[in-house]
Amino acid sequence: MKGTIRLGIIGGGQLGKMLIQSAMDFNIEIHVLDGDAQAPCRPLAHHFTIGNIEGEQTVIDFGQGLDVVTVEIERISVRGLEYLQQKGIKVYPQPHALRIIQDKRLQKQFYAEYQIPTADFVLTENKEEVKKLAQKWLPAVHKIGKGGYDGKGVVVLNSEKDLEKAFDAPAVLEKKVNIAQEISVIVARGIDGQTSVFPPVASVFNPELNLVDYLIAPADISEKIVAEANELAVKIIEKLDMVGLLAVEFFLSESGDLLVNEVAPRPHNSGHHTIKACYTSQFEQHIRAICGLPLGNPTQHTPAAMINLLGEKGYEGVAHYEGMEKALQTDSVFVHLYGKAITKSGRKMGHITVLAPDKNELMQKITQLKDAIKVVAK
Amino acid sequence: MKGTIRLGIIGGGQLGKMLIQSAMDFNIEIHVLDGDAQAPCRPLAHHFTIGNIEGEQTVIDFGQGLDVVTVEIERISVRGLEYLQQKGIKVYPQPHALRIIQDKRLQKQFYAEYQIPTADFVLTENKEEVKKLAQKWLPAVHKIGKGGYDGKGVVVLNSEKDLEKAFDAPAVLEKKVNIAQEISVIVARGIDGQTSVFPPVASVFNPELNLVDYLIAPADISEKIVAEANELAVKIIEKLDMVGLLAVEFFLSESGDLLVNEVAPRPHNSGHHTIKACYTSQFEQHIRAICGLPLGNPTQHTPAAMINLLGEKGYEGVAHYEGMEKALQTDSVFVHLYGKAITKSGRKMGHITVLAPDKNELMQKITQLKDAIKVVAK
Repeated sequence: MKGTIRLGIIGGGQLGKMLIQSAMDFNIEIHVLDGDAQAPCRPLAHHFTIGNIEGEQTVIDFGQGLDVVTVEIERISVRGLEYLQQKGIKVYPQPHALRIIQDKRLQKQFYAEYQIPTADFVLTENKEEVKKLAQKWLPAVHKIGKGGYDGKGVVVLNSEKDLEKAFDAPAVLEKKVNIAQEISVIVARGIDGQTSVFPPVASVFNPELNLVDYLIAPADISEKIVAEANELAVKIIEKLDMVGLLAVEFFLSESGDLLVNEVAPRPHNSGHHTIKACYTSQFEQHIRAICGLPLGNPTQHTPAAMINLLGEKGYEGVAHYEGMEKALQTDSVFVHLYGKAITKSGRKMGHITVLAPDKNELMQKITQLKDAIKVVAK
Repeated sequence: MKGTIRLGIIGGGQLGKMLIQSAMDFNIEIHVLDGDAQAPCRPLAHHFTIGNIEGEQTVIDFGQGLDVVTVEIERISVRGLEYLQQKGIKVYPQPHALRIIQDKRLQKQFYAEYQIPTADFVLTENKEEVKKLAQKWLPAVHKIGKGGYDGKGVVVLNSEKDLEKAFDAPAVLEKKVNIAQEISVIVARGIDGQTSVFPPVASVFNPELNLVDYLIAPADISEKIVAEANELAVKIIEKLDMVGLLAVEFFLSESGDLLVNEVAPRPHNSGHHTIKACYTSQFEQHIRAICGLPLGNPTQHTPAAMINLLGEKGYEGVAHYEGMEKALQTDSVFVHLYGKAITKSGRKMGHITVLAPDKNELMQKITQLKDAIKVVAK
């Protein structure tokens, strides 16, 4: 390896923080750009710039002089990244892939173009159009084209009385899928085109907050579905011609169809268990991919569950973690706090990874732990 | 857990760096004291103080106002730590244990006092005394009482012609043991007195540099010896009445006796593989112990080897790592660089962890990898 690599990370949240934890093993000099002066990455980065990640010039100024630039969030200035790429800076994921992924409309068209199975959809420009399409398409899910994240920008339209919730902006109207399971596959692709896939995980959602409640890895699905999901994940990252990590979220329908829901071109919430349960973590894998190093072994050595630690409903203020000591008394329970000073209702404040030799023991531990730790304000 | 813990680490080298990597999961605010402005911890700590770790007042000034103070090196001002402890700051390992361990003479007397098996020894005050004792004690090992580390401060006296190498200072003269294997056990002890032991590892030394060449975990020793080593490690940490990690280095003699060589009250080179091969790493275990959290599961999930990356002989200057990409092409090979800008002959610049399903495959990989990465200056 040549001298120290100067790596820029756009976005300074928990994904960036865990990337830094891994990058520290490779003597990488870390530069972070985020609009929040209190971002989790701030105290850990070599250089931290406060600035608007959606600002073209801000991104350009940040990236100039770095060797590699990556992102831990999609809502960034793609034009800024394009400029940096033209100047010879390595930008992974590449701007062309980010442009597609940033806009759910382009993402769906990309799936259609490459015969990648996904829920039937139609593009809509405004609320009026959705109302006109209602009879044919309901029950449906309406997803805003740009700017949605963490469940925001998505509404379920079960019947005509829900239509007022539809977005009055460019969006995608999708046939609602009868979901048997939600699974996720994280695939990595190196600069040389080599790919590597982590074992699929299954997510269990908290319907109230529309956020992952807990995750089981590996997912309890047939080998046929595993192979299909892996193949699709590799196909998508190859067709996107992208370097880095891509998290592919699937719906497994009640009729047994595997449909791509959406993708994220970065480390992902559904890969946090890899830190403790796989030989190579998703964060190390991303670093290896974007720095031109050989990809690591993604094998999972122990069954795992991951529970998000969300800010308790009704609390806002300086975070306190109740029940930590008790939770850690359970064998093979690991806590990862994100270093966010302020908790808010439903904010991702950390996660717990639980390991167990088999699924039964895992389920028992999850039941014990699900509400063991409360993130409150005092 | 109450609000953020402010943790002081005295010493800013690679052990401190890997402690920080782990502490980041617990929202711990890290303060580091080291005399070297270029110490590996500097860019990663929340607060970095440049100062003499052996200076009593420097240590006091550093520790005031912190919640917990720990060390990643033994050569620090114990008097400074004692003062902090009296002021109510939690100091782990405790000063009374550090005082014994810092001085190899006190350490040996401690073993004798508690009937802990160790090589026969006699205390010597100067070179003249060693010469007088030669006939009875040679072949012997002469260890300086204070200030030795990483093989420095130790000379082997095989015959009378070696006697000029003996230390002309307070030291220990030990009967030379016919060593079949060197093994190491890392034990952790919590504030509540709970203990937990990592599986024993075997070290293979580089005789030229007197530094560990590579390490195999778990060690290939009988269950009886494992039980004996674990029991002794627990006994020592309990008799020292110490909180934190204690690495206990043993000689297994050709006649089958297990003898304590020496101990280190902190994370240790012989525990680096735990990051990748055990459910809980030695660094996380130390953090849990000294922060009053329940200890983690130390079980090793996969056989491992650890190879130190030492600065190549004859090179001094800005470090370059040759062969990294090639080494990482081997399955389940992981690199941990310490972020030291300058390489020197024999300096610990990083380590490689190799995982394999069985010992045979592990040995094959070690043979391939041993000289794969060279740390040179350009």
